[in-house]
Amino acid sequence: MAYRAPVSDIAFTMRHVAGFDRAQEEGLYGDLSADLAETVLEEAGRFAADVIAPLNREGDRHGVTLKDGEVTTAPGWKEAYRAWTDAGWNALPGPVAFGGQGLPTLLNSACVEMWNSASMAFGIGPILTMGAIEALVAHGTDELRERYLAKLVSGAWTATMNLTEPQAGSDLAALRSRAEPAGDGTYRIRGQKIFITYGEHDLTDNIVHLVLARLPDAPAGTRGISLFLVPKVLPDGTRNDLRCAGIEHKLGIHGSPTCTMVFGDREGAVGWLVGEENRGLNCMFTMMNNARLAVGLQGVAVAERAYQQALAYARERRQGRAPDHAGDGMSPIVEHPDVQRSLLTMKALTAAARAICYMTAAAIDRAHLGRDEAARRQAHERASLLTPVAKAFSTDVGVEVASLGVQVHGGMGYIEETGAAQHLRDARIAPIYEGTNGIQAIDLVMRKLPLSGGNTARAQIAAMRAAVARVMKEGTPLFGNTAPRLRDAIECLDRTTSHMLRLVQANAPAEALAGATPYLRLFGLAQGGAALAEAALAANRMIGEGDADPAHAGRIALCRFFAENLAVGAKGLEDAVLGGAGFLQDAATALAS
Amino acid sequence: MAYRAPVSDIAFTMRHVAGFDRAQEEGLYGDLSADLAETVLEEAGRFAADVIAPLNREGDRHGVTLKDGEVTTAPGWKEAYRAWTDAGWNALPGPVAFGGQGLPTLLNSACVEMWNSASMAFGIGPILTMGAIEALVAHGTDELRERYLAKLVSGAWTATMNLTEPQAGSDLAALRSRAEPAGDGTYRIRGQKIFITYGEHDLTDNIVHLVLARLPDAPAGTRGISLFLVPKVLPDGTRNDLRCAGIEHKLGIHGSPTCTMVFGDREGAVGWLVGEENRGLNCMFTMMNNARLAVGLQGVAVAERAYQQALAYARERRQGRAPDHAGDGMSPIVEHPDVQRSLLTMKALTAAARAICYMTAAAIDRAHLGRDEAARRQAHERASLLTPVAKAFSTDVGVEVASLGVQVHGGMGYIEETGAAQHLRDARIAPIYEGTNGIQAIDLVMRKLPLSGGNTARAQIAAMRAAVARVMKEGTPLFGNTAPRLRDAIECLDRTTSHMLRLVQANAPAEALAGATPYLRLFGLAQGGAALAEAALAANRMIGEGDADPAHAGRIALCRFFAENLAVGAKGLEDAVLGGAGFLQDAATALAS
Repeated sequence: MAYRAPVSDIAFTMRHVAGFDRAQEEGLYGDLSADLAETVLEEAGRFAADVIAPLNREGDRHGVTLKDGEVTTAPGWKEAYRAWTDAGWNALPGPVAFGGQGLPTLLNSACVEMWNSASMAFGIGPILTMGAIEALVAHGTDELRERYLAKLVSGAWTATMNLTEPQAGSDLAALRSRAEPAGDGTYRIRGQKIFITYGEHDLTDNIVHLVLARLPDAPAGTRGISLFLVPKVLPDGTRNDLRCAGIEHKLGIHGSPTCTMVFGDREGAVGWLVGEENRGLNCMFTMMNNARLAVGLQGVAVAERAYQQALAYARERRQGRAPDHAGDGMSPIVEHPDVQRSLLTMKALTAAARAICYMTAAAIDRAHLGRDEAARRQAHERASLLTPVAKAFSTDVGVEVASLGVQVHGGMGYIEETGAAQHLRDARIAPIYEGTNGIQAIDLVMRKLPLSGGNTARAQIAAMRAAVARVMKEGTPLFGNTAPRLRDAIECLDRTTSHMLRLVQANAPAEALAGATPYLRLFGLAQGGAALAEAALAANRMIGEGDADPAHAGRIALCRFFAENLAVGAKGLEDAVLGGAGFLQDAATALAS
Repeated sequence: MAYRAPVSDIAFTMRHVAGFDRAQEEGLYGDLSADLAETVLEEAGRFAADVIAPLNREGDRHGVTLKDGEVTTAPGWKEAYRAWTDAGWNALPGPVAFGGQGLPTLLNSACVEMWNSASMAFGIGPILTMGAIEALVAHGTDELRERYLAKLVSGAWTATMNLTEPQAGSDLAALRSRAEPAGDGTYRIRGQKIFITYGEHDLTDNIVHLVLARLPDAPAGTRGISLFLVPKVLPDGTRNDLRCAGIEHKLGIHGSPTCTMVFGDREGAVGWLVGEENRGLNCMFTMMNNARLAVGLQGVAVAERAYQQALAYARERRQGRAPDHAGDGMSPIVEHPDVQRSLLTMKALTAAARAICYMTAAAIDRAHLGRDEAARRQAHERASLLTPVAKAFSTDVGVEVASLGVQVHGGMGYIEETGAAQHLRDARIAPIYEGTNGIQAIDLVMRKLPLSGGNTARAQIAAMRAAVARVMKEGTPLFGNTAPRLRDAIECLDRTTSHMLRLVQANAPAEALAGATPYLRLFGLAQGGAALAEAALAANRMIGEGDADPAHAGRIALCRFFAENLAVGAKGLEDAVLGGAGFLQDAATALAS
């Protein structure tokens, strides 16, 4: 199935929900006008659809191969990556000083969505390079920045994040890789890392590995971990002592190599310290936070792709007669109410997740570009609060929407040639990597809610309420029960937020942790609904101004569907959060039998 | 991962939730005592775990191959099937007159669950044979019964259901395969069928195809479809004019061949009429209803398997420190509250789906064995009502639980060697075949709710209420908020049931259809919760009687978890059913952009 970049929905969300236009008016985005941004989106959409999307199936079927330590990507991938970097897409968000275009995270996030709709297996590579650039900008020495940033910004070289070891996944305290000072300012790295995305490949001549390891005298736990830059090819052109010892046979994203990396099984891999000794986790979090947003965008991306494919099939496929079918013969299944519910659910969840991710990206921009320190700090906290929601809610949505997409296809959905199943297989990694969604929920409740004594979260809820109040005031029948349904969802979020804050402040972590996952989902539903209300309000305003684009009525209808059919799940989630910790005492008993 | 048959939970559900003991006391099950039934379950569990389960991975990896029209199953499959039929398992539910053991559907359903936990790809074959036996018993001529039933009952031969054609899936009215009388009492069948499970294979010498086709003078639509028996090998030992023209490359159940079957591209395939001319769909529904229950059991089965694997991993894998972790080092992740929530969700959904399926099976038994005509008719309607819920709720649960199982494994879950991903791939077919879950929801609302003017559904709801009233009376703190939460869910079901009945009676199908899927889910939650309450009440009684089995406390805790965390979703579903049809007018607009 072809991919058509939904540029108009993307641009609308960016401008009127995530607040591009407002930020632009405030001067945050310099001379990047909305028109120019839309032109960039059009171009990116065309590239994604024309060059990357056609490779997605081939990447899935062919996968990657490992022979004598060399990894070969699927036919056409190397050329596509070259064309993509040649066109400057990798450099879009990069720092101008190193050849980047310095464009906002918000605009780049919209592009990241499109690359990943075209192919998640393709899109994940540059996400990691982007993270490494941020880590080097923030923490690298001048020498490292000079040597590596230009190549990483252009995409001539790619980068990896080497965190996971067999015994250390979600818990990095258990990390064992070692680094010894060599006396010349470099270090010798030794250890084995697993699940390293694009750890080895044939797309570029060099690969820059960022590796977490312990110094000899490092304290135990997470405060004894340092970050090192370990290139595949050393500055003198020789190969470093590191190799890909295996690639994984995965459920999906077959086009991307997932490598076991062995560092230093001969003389030790040469590495350079990034940031301070024993502060490696801090440096890593710089790149992880933005990578988490990007993985959330992957959820949006695969959901969008699955939705497009299901909609196209539902318009084509004829079975049965819909209740108000006029003509002879069978109806396209898109006319059946039950299929419409499935497709609307897919589209509404996708739109809500997209809005949350773009809002997060806009907050990241404000955290960098905001007028004053207070505005930047506030935006930084808002971005921190929203990041785990953007990651977990959106990637759960990716799986749910892809699964619904299989279902809409009926029997054809189960046949691999149809392509719907690939989206489900691909989507399934996103709730796992860059911190499982369980870890995101814990991060949201334990670290993000308490920001500014809870005021960051409260301000976010106040903004949701304000959007709903405007819907209420609007009073057009098109909105149906949008306002009361969203208001109820937001009140559920408000009550559970207070509850969670009390638990965290009372140092009752077990109870807070027990409700973290339904709490995050509830946050996503309320925030997603409020964001779709913003979109619907903007659309309604444009209709009032005489804008004849039929998509505006569609935005109102989609918001209404979300409110009346999906946001209504909030109450059940609140019950689970407030009363659900009842299982803590009995869990062992219930799981024992 | 090894499979351990949960015989004790299975037997408990069969006896105390589905009512085996009560039916036995009433004499319905003759001399089949509970002890004897449990012995059968023990034996079946051992066979499933020891002989079938080890083949599951091999079937997935190796798949099936087609060469020169012959399909070869994975290594070991033929021997396992032979051993399984030799041990008499295929004959368990078959009619005694044809060599079967005539054991109840309830007991066989428990066995079907175990075969399918061991391997869905293995288990689906005998489900189809079982359906064909029922169709032949009910509608076959004496000649056909004599010729085929003994072989099908023993499993020496298998059977298929040939319904789907490229243009005719959910809507069989569009069926085009033709049948012409040959003048000698036989017919010549011509046409192409797709998605035919075990349409060709090497497990047995002959395959009995039941094929839907149209007679030359048949009326258009579903009233012009007849059912034919078309054997691979004719009674004189020659090959019939039919062949497997292709096998599908599927997302999962790789061990089972899914065939394109071509009938009669030479002289016409020889077939015999089953039932009356043009009444083929009625005959087919005989086999489809029980096949639908069996597919629901597949959902239970794969959920159970995924749960076992995730639990074992969570006990083994250590990461981080749980809030009340006492010792040094990392906790097994099973101690983390968020992981406990995932595992409890998996177990509770699985137990609820199992209970619903077994209740359906018990109703089928009563429909055959009940004391008098009225009791049989009532039970038949109850079975009819519950069948779409058993099929759709359980298979959705299968996918959800398998997906959670992947998640509990973290990164390892995405690696195919772990096996968790296979369960998700396998599970994904069950909401699709034997009538998609959307079709089940439509069946429930449009055909099943109106049975006896709605009284069948109302009686079912009354029984749920009675169970909750008993929990309320019990008043032990172990039940927590079980009673109020389940009561709320049942009241949601009651209100939406009345709403749906009104719509169907008012001939407002579009609105009813728009809410059918959330209505079915709500039915499943309320019924599942009530069933787990029955289990918890029985367990509580046994504890009171001094039974020291710790599993009893676990059953109460599981019921409480379901009520407080999952049944609470009922209100949101009610909102979607009652107000959700608001999208009907705007759906086209919302989906257009």
